[in-house]
This record gives sequence, C-alpha cells and structure tokens, in this order.
Amino acid sequence: MPARDEITYFGAGPASLPTTVLQNASSAILNFQNTGLGLAEHSHRSALSHGILASTESSLRTLLSIPEDYTVLFMQGGGTTQFSAVVYNLLGYWARMDYVVTGGWSQKGSEEARRLFGEEKVNVVTDSRKVFGRYCGIEEEKGWKRTEGEERVFTYYCDNETVDGVEFPGFPRSLEGGVVVADMSSNILSRRVDVSKFHVIFAGAQKNIGITGLTIVVLKSSILQIQPTPGTLRALGLPVPPVMMSYPSLAKHNSLYNTLPIFDVWIAGEVMKELVAAGGLAKQEEVANRKAERLYAALGRAPGIFKVVPLEGARSRMNICVRAHPAELEGVFLRGAEERGLLGLKGHRSVGGIRISNYNSITEASVDKLVQYIDEFVQKNA
Amino acid sequence: MPARDEITYFGAGPASLPTTVLQNASSAILNFQNTGLGLAEHSHRSALSHGILASTESSLRTLLSIPEDYTVLFMQGGGTTQFSAVVYNLLGYWARMDYVVTGGWSQKGSEEARRLFGEEKVNVVTDSRKVFGRYCGIEEEKGWKRTEGEERVFTYYCDNETVDGVEFPGFPRSLEGGVVVADMSSNILSRRVDVSKFHVIFAGAQKNIGITGLTIVVLKSSILQIQPTPGTLRALGLPVPPVMMSYPSLAKHNSLYNTLPIFDVWIAGEVMKELVAAGGLAKQEEVANRKAERLYAALGRAPGIFKVVPLEGARSRMNICVRAHPAELEGVFLRGAEERGLLGLKGHRSVGGIRISNYNSITEASVDKLVQYIDEFVQKNA
Repeated sequence: MPARDEITYFGAGPASLPTTVLQNASSAILNFQNTGLGLAEHSHRSALSHGILASTESSLRTLLSIPEDYTVLFMQGGGTTQFSAVVYNLLGYWARMDYVVTGGWSQKGSEEARRLFGEEKVNVVTDSRKVFGRYCGIEEEKGWKRTEGEERVFTYYCDNETVDGVEFPGFPRSLEGGVVVADMSSNILSRRVDVSKFHVIFAGAQKNIGITGLTIVVLKSSILQIQPTPGTLRALGLPVPPVMMSYPSLAKHNSLYNTLPIFDVWIAGEVMKELVAAGGLAKQEEVANRKAERLYAALGRAPGIFKVVPLEGARSRMNICVRAHPAELEGVFLRGAEERGLLGLKGHRSVGGIRISNYNSITEASVDKLVQYIDEFVQKNA
Repeated sequence: MPARDEITYFGAGPASLPTTVLQNASSAILNFQNTGLGLAEHSHRSALSHGILASTESSLRTLLSIPEDYTVLFMQGGGTTQFSAVVYNLLGYWARMDYVVTGGWSQKGSEEARRLFGEEKVNVVTDSRKVFGRYCGIEEEKGWKRTEGEERVFTYYCDNETVDGVEFPGFPRSLEGGVVVADMSSNILSRRVDVSKFHVIFAGAQKNIGITGLTIVVLKSSILQIQPTPGTLRALGLPVPPVMMSYPSLAKHNSLYNTLPIFDVWIAGEVMKELVAAGGLAKQEEVANRKAERLYAALGRAPGIFKVVPLEGARSRMNICVRAHPAELEGVFLRGAEERGLLGLKGHRSVGGIRISNYNSITEASVDKLVQYIDEFVQKNA
C-alpha cells in the first residue's frame, strides 16, 4: 500500500500530477472554497466558473506568451478530436493539406484527414517510416516534398511523438511564414514556443497540463473570420463540422457552447499557476532538458544493454524510448523498477520496449532515482 | 461557510451528487485503492481501468435492463456532441429525419441536423412553439406530421426538456416499431425505460449519472453493421463522421479509441452502484414521482402566486418550471430560498422564472424543506 511519495509514475498519459494539485483537487471536489458544493457540481455558467476559465486562460497566455491576436479554446475529446476539428475548420479556406509524418500520432492525424476528405486532398511531405524504416527520426527538410503551385496549403506536424519518442528540436525552418498546425499534446508547457509561427496549436491535457477530458486549442483569431458558412461548405461539396468542433462557434461562446468540465479546467489552472510561480517555461525548459540529458546519459553509459530507439537530433525530451538487449532484460528491468516504485515504464503496446516519460510533474529527485536504478541494473547485467 | 449537508443544490446540471460518492472521489483522486496513484493518473488501458469500465457498464445494463443486442458506449462531448453524432451515424442508411420539437433541446438537435445536412433532410413532426405559442406542452400525436412514403426514416425526440420542464409521460405510441432516437440527458435513471423501443438513447452525465465530461450512448448493435464506409458516404455526397463520433469505431475499441476520462466513468459507476443497491429504477421512479408530486402540489396550493409553465400531462418530474406573480416575487423567492440553503432555483437564462431540478441526488428530506419554504412563502405573500 504505497503512499504517493513512495512511487514515481513515468506513464505517458494519463500522466502523474503534482501532489499539491491533487490534494487541492481532493478537497475541491467535495466542497469548493467553502461553498458547500463540490466544484464538479457548480454551474459552468456561474461567476465562479467564469473566474476559473479566465484565470486558467490567463496563466496559459502568460506561460506561452500568447499574442493578443490569438484565441484560446477549451474543448473536450482529446487530441484525436482535433485531428478532425483542425481539418474541418481549415479545409474550407485552405485547399490542400501537407502532413509531416514522423510517428504514430502524425500518421493518425493524416489518416483521419484522408478518411474525412479522401486521398487526393492529403499530401504526405515526409514519412519517417519510409525514410528510416521506422519512426525513429526526422528527415532533413530539404528532402520534404511540400505541395507546390498552390498557395492555400496548411502544414501539419506533431511536435513530439509520444509513442515513438521523436521530438522536433525546434520549429521546422522550411515552414517559416507558412500556415502551420501543430499537435503539442505531449510536450506543451515543457519549453518556450513562439506561438506566432503557428495558426493552430492543440494539446490534450492529460500529459503536461492536467487530467483527461480537457483539450487546449490556441489559434490565430483570423481563422475564425474566414471559415465558410455551412451553406458555402455544402456548395463546395465539403462537410460541415459538427458544432462542437466548430472553432468559430466555440470562440463565440467563450468555450461554453455546451457544458464544459470546469473541474478539469480548474486542475489545469492549478498546474499552470505552479508553473508560473516556479519561473515559467524558461525554467521548465531548463529542468526538462537537464532531466532528459541525465536519462539519456545513463542509458548511453551502457550501449551494450540499452539502445535508444530514435536517432540523435530527434530524441524526445519527454518520452525516452529505449530497447534492452537481450530482449529478456526488458522484463527484468521493468519488474526491478516496479519493486522500487518506479512505475509506468513499459513502452506503448504498438512498439514495445521501455519508455520513460519525463513530463513536468516528474521531479529531478525521481529522475535521480531512476538513473541510479539504471546504473545499478547495468552493473549487475554487464 | 456552509457544510455540504446545510445546503441543497437544485441546479439543472451540473447537478449535485451524493455526498458519499464525492467523499470516495475525494480520496480516489489522490490515491486510488492504495495504488499510490490518483485515479485520474492511471492509464485508461490498465486492468484497473478496464475493470471500472466493465463494472460501470454492467451497472448501467442492470439498471436499464439493456437487452443483449445493445451496445453501450462511453463518449466525451456531452449531449450536444450527440446531436451531431446521431445524425452522422444514421443518415447514411436512413434517408430522412423526423424531429419532434417539444423544447429548446430538441430544437437545438434539429437545428444541428439542418446545419450539417441542409434543410431538406429534416422534417419537423411537431413544434410545440407553433402549437402552444411556447414550449409548454406536447401536441397530441394524431396531429404530428411524420414523413410518409419513405421507409428509411428515423425519429428523434427529447424525453425531458431541461430548460422548459416538459417531459414525455411515456414512449410516444405512434412511434412504436419505428426507428427512434432519444435524448435522455436529464431524466435517464429516473424511471424504467423499455430500451428495446429505441435505436439510440444518449445522455450527458452531469444530471443523473455523474459529472460533466462523460456521455453515455446505448444503441442497437445492428446499427454498427449498416453504417456505410467513408468511401460510400463520400460517393453518396454525405459527410464522413469524425472518428471520435463514429459509433462503429468507438464500439470496436470498447470506448477506448482514444484516452477516455476514466475518473468520470468511475464516478458514474459509483452513482449507479448506489442506485442498484437502493432498489434500481423501479424504486427511483417511485421516489422521483413522489418528490415531483409533492412539489407540484405545493405550487398548486397557491395558484394566485405560482403558475407552473408546462401544461398538465407534459410536466417534467425532473425540472419543475414555474413563474411567480407578480414577477417581483421571483427575486424575493430566490433570495429567501438561498438564505435557507436552497440553491440553484433560478430558471434557465433563456426563459427566466424559477426551476426546481429534482434529480435522483435530491433527497425527499430536501424536497420537504423546499415544500415547507414554498408553503411559508405563500402564507407570507398571499
């Protein structure tokens, strides 16, 4: 029967949350701010809920330095809902989609675009599986096959591939000045981002932001103006987005088109307040980099046992994917880790292996414990 | 600083929850079943989460006596998401939609169908606003104008109109044997339902089931077989549903196509377990009827002051909508109620007045308190 501080959960999402936030949540769900009512019982249209929405948005704007001409939406349905929403909302105005496929999630995004609109609308700019045989790197941009001769194109990429451990080291240079959509579900709030380079950024909350059920969308407000009406879309032979995926409808209602899970918004707000107080994303970036470096260094000390899956230059700071050799050692490693309270280290079911998720809530002390375990494991099995 | 037991919240949703459930939730969110991890941190693909899903589904099946050839889906996005999902999923096979409009929510459902597919696909069978001047009753079925000469029609209605306080007393007789979709967001689990009469039943959780963030869909499994492929839909000129709204995709993945908020599912499960233990829906129906009768009786004792908005025969047991005369008395009534800890009695912002939401979590003792207050208020203002 472990207490919270006896274990560390390195799962990829839902991820662990700061204990302080969960302690507050534990009280909030029963009786919020001495109102006699739990937070999940309060009306989403109450002044209290409006305050939570405003304060969470404000923290997000502070953390990401979101420009004034950007809108923040709180939505439901996770990143997968945004795979569809983004396309529905952009494809009326933009006529083509360029997908940068560097892992399982960008692949799923492109698959959904194809499913909704047909093969011919989707251009795959690069597919790491074709370039490297599997999702383990990012092709050099000069090899990318972007749509040419058509101005109305948007480009979609996934900034951090949770399953494959592949992360863009920074904004892709060749996309500068273009219309860019990014899935940042698993690395948002872990480093500074120049939001002005993007038209849409989205992220499911359950990794670095909060709990499952909330999705954050940051978009250039001008997008809201150019979306065609349902009638025009139909005349163009394009499907109308469901109202709950229509960015203009949600923006018009300040994300309250229907009942929003305010409890989830509040948790995200609490997490963000802690990040702001701790020094914002510059600090978070510094800590995340340091933690990732220590982990990669520990794995690198035993190249005979551990093999990091992604290539250098594309290795994620958030999800460290590694295989052990011989393969039987993986089970031994995972069991030994569990005995020490180091949990959630199993790779995604689609790829196997070991995955260390290194989100904001993982403390440096926890990383030290894991590094120590890795070192001991290597000594024992060398 | 009221304790939970000093107030009763009669809000229409998010609604109040049993204190026992929230006490368990308060502990579950911090350290679930002594795992050292909060429930919202546990993987949705863990054995623990699978157990929660299975047990919640099992309680729901018990409560509603769901036939074996029906599928239960747990989704995100609330009832409004289902306005779109239902149409996307049914309109490939069924060619026309009949909407029974008895209040604001069925009106919104029909509006979304029109928005997505165009005017010509939607037939309004009856519109209470046209029949009665406002949403306050249900037209006799012999006056309904159903689509004729077309076999592939489904009919949509809202079993209980939360905003207007209009509820169907039972299944509409003229729809027997047809393909019927019902929004039961605000009266599900408050009475027995013959599920076999419906092709789809959906309900947002935040009234009688649990907290915001979860939506329950119960559907005839045969629907999953007849939905055309994306290619066929496109060839028919019909839009493909977003994958998160595709019933077949969700069913295939046991509602885990993407990350589902298991915490919300667990809360629903806890609520349902209590209902099962308390005698199931027969008991709940008996209690709900008794509570509603007491409230309507109290209001009826002062016809000079209180005027129930809906007509007899269509009055909701769940949302009791009433106006006070003279209108200034409404504010006086609401302030006096608040002083006694009787909260959430304000009517929906679109219609005003007073609304008493009488969901399962409202105890008979709380209803007695409110009835006593109504009686005293009447005596004072007669």
